[in-house]
Amino acid sequence: MFFDVPPLPRALEAELQHRIDRKTKPVGALGLLEALALQAGLVQGTLTPQLCLPQVLVFAGDHGLAEEGVSAYPQEVTWQMVMNFLAEGAAVNVLARANGLAVRVIDAGVKHDFAPHPMLVQAKVAPGTRNALRGPAMSAAQCEQALARGAALVAEAVAQGSNVLAFGEMGIANTSAATLLLHKLAGVPLDVGTGRGTGVDDAGLAHKRDVLTRAAARTASQLPPFEALQQYGGFEIAMMTGAMLAAAQARVLILVDGFITSSAALVARCLAPGARDCMVFAHCSAESGHRALLQALQATPLLDLGLRLGEGTGAVLAWPLLKSAVAMLNEMASFESAGVADKPA
Amino acid sequence: MFFDVPPLPRALEAELQHRIDRKTKPVGALGLLEALALQAGLVQGTLTPQLCLPQVLVFAGDHGLAEEGVSAYPQEVTWQMVMNFLAEGAAVNVLARANGLAVRVIDAGVKHDFAPHPMLVQAKVAPGTRNALRGPAMSAAQCEQALARGAALVAEAVAQGSNVLAFGEMGIANTSAATLLLHKLAGVPLDVGTGRGTGVDDAGLAHKRDVLTRAAARTASQLPPFEALQQYGGFEIAMMTGAMLAAAQARVLILVDGFITSSAALVARCLAPGARDCMVFAHCSAESGHRALLQALQATPLLDLGLRLGEGTGAVLAWPLLKSAVAMLNEMASFESAGVADKPA
Repeated sequence: MFFDVPPLPRALEAELQHRIDRKTKPVGALGLLEALALQAGLVQGTLTPQLCLPQVLVFAGDHGLAEEGVSAYPQEVTWQMVMNFLAEGAAVNVLARANGLAVRVIDAGVKHDFAPHPMLVQAKVAPGTRNALRGPAMSAAQCEQALARGAALVAEAVAQGSNVLAFGEMGIANTSAATLLLHKLAGVPLDVGTGRGTGVDDAGLAHKRDVLTRAAARTASQLPPFEALQQYGGFEIAMMTGAMLAAAQARVLILVDGFITSSAALVARCLAPGARDCMVFAHCSAESGHRALLQALQATPLLDLGLRLGEGTGAVLAWPLLKSAVAMLNEMASFESAGVADKPA
Repeated sequence: MFFDVPPLPRALEAELQHRIDRKTKPVGALGLLEALALQAGLVQGTLTPQLCLPQVLVFAGDHGLAEEGVSAYPQEVTWQMVMNFLAEGAAVNVLARANGLAVRVIDAGVKHDFAPHPMLVQAKVAPGTRNALRGPAMSAAQCEQALARGAALVAEAVAQGSNVLAFGEMGIANTSAATLLLHKLAGVPLDVGTGRGTGVDDAGLAHKRDVLTRAAARTASQLPPFEALQQYGGFEIAMMTGAMLAAAQARVLILVDGFITSSAALVARCLAPGARDCMVFAHCSAESGHRALLQALQATPLLDLGLRLGEGTGAVLAWPLLKSAVAMLNEMASFESAGVADKPA
């Protein structure tokens, strides 16, 4: 499976920047909002980007590694939280509703059979990965299947008219998978990358580190991205990776949530460096490895609110900033149009 | 003029915190959003706060100190930007529209006669303050008038049903006024507090520091808040101060924008410490004194986007976070209601 994502053409960059600079404000005075507006213009290849049908895709999957006791919560919380998403009672539902995004929930590999539901996409690869302490979390075929299903989902969203997608996830033990990916793909030590996830205590954290150290020792210290994903990823992470790659190919803006979603962004960037250009990093979470992961991605997150929930909650909270940046570019007056005196040269 | 603002009753705190803790997420996993939800509940004295008719009040005023060349822009930009606000082309208009807030513009003391306009509140105390390098920026009577008009404006907004107000400002040279207030009320050295404002160059910054040093030397090193406001404030700053005090008295949530707006918050807090409880600090701006000012207010800003525009732009961008926090409190399921297994004790 091969994703060809060329880097964004920069032909419009100077003209976009000039438009931003002539807005009625000191040059640079809208900070990161200006960088966002520029990025949106470059991604869409236009001076007047439009954001259509924003949705948050929440990918859920279970992890064989959960049986090693690396999470503070029992594994059934994954499917229970999927039910909570479908009942529209979870944080991501509430925040998406408050901020005007639609929610779709994707069963990428949850250990539970769900009845059909209008918000649910049934894309299960298998009922949970295998235990990555003992062997590869998934087969190569499963990994390819997850990537392809993610890509197909995005094709569908694009066909419906979406050009901005937020990504989030749910999966007990998936901070462990993300930590291992960060370790194998960016060389971040497990000491730095391992955090408390949903809230393990000190003993739990030491145990989690020990499990991850042993799991990491199974393979070479660095791995190619596809192999790292197969060895340590989750179905939700692999499916997000495929979805992000397809989104970047289609020049769709990608709103990346927290630690686990960023780990999918890292895999995507390793598979196709051009994909990075379409990514907007919503926030820096309180999960300890996230800052290092963002650094590996050379990302400046928009928010830093101490969030550590996942689900896409941070991405949904950052959406108004992206919307605001594009509104600034399209609607704000220039010094010329408003008849305001500019700073003397 | 006396504003009695008792500290918020904390009787509901434990119950509010319990409600937040039982939501379907690890305790604390929504970070600052949880603190915001708690604050909203305490301010309104209810477990189910509601946010009604959010508006941003943009206070404009001119400063006599501008004649000392402390700003990169000419003084007429103040009134020209007011015209831009009324034409709905400025950053604050665009961002308020994108995020669902109404905009009102208050002429607190602009050196220009404006024709009546539905968005404009004519509350001019005088056409600009006097030059604070030579003597008090305003008389005691003018300062009281500005405070009282600000309070009256809020009373009107509350009568219309608003219970959340964002504050912003416009006024060439008003970072100088804010810097002097920060110096006199919180002891922050002028070296730390003096920034580039709309963008003075190195020589301009040195000149601005020199002017502020001489202006500060006119009075005692520390001043009571009313006197500091009278000596160094602007009409827009004084009117915001009165408005914030009245808002806190009415238990209205106050969204504080950047450096200048925060200087009004500081004066308000010095006049009536209880007012602090109703304030939400939207962001930390790139203007160099703002971080020190936020520290003086013991404030944790929500955003840090490198903004340095004022107008209320940061406050408007933070509004979706406040709205989201309240939605979380009111709409999110609990472990019990959703049938999700909690972390084993």
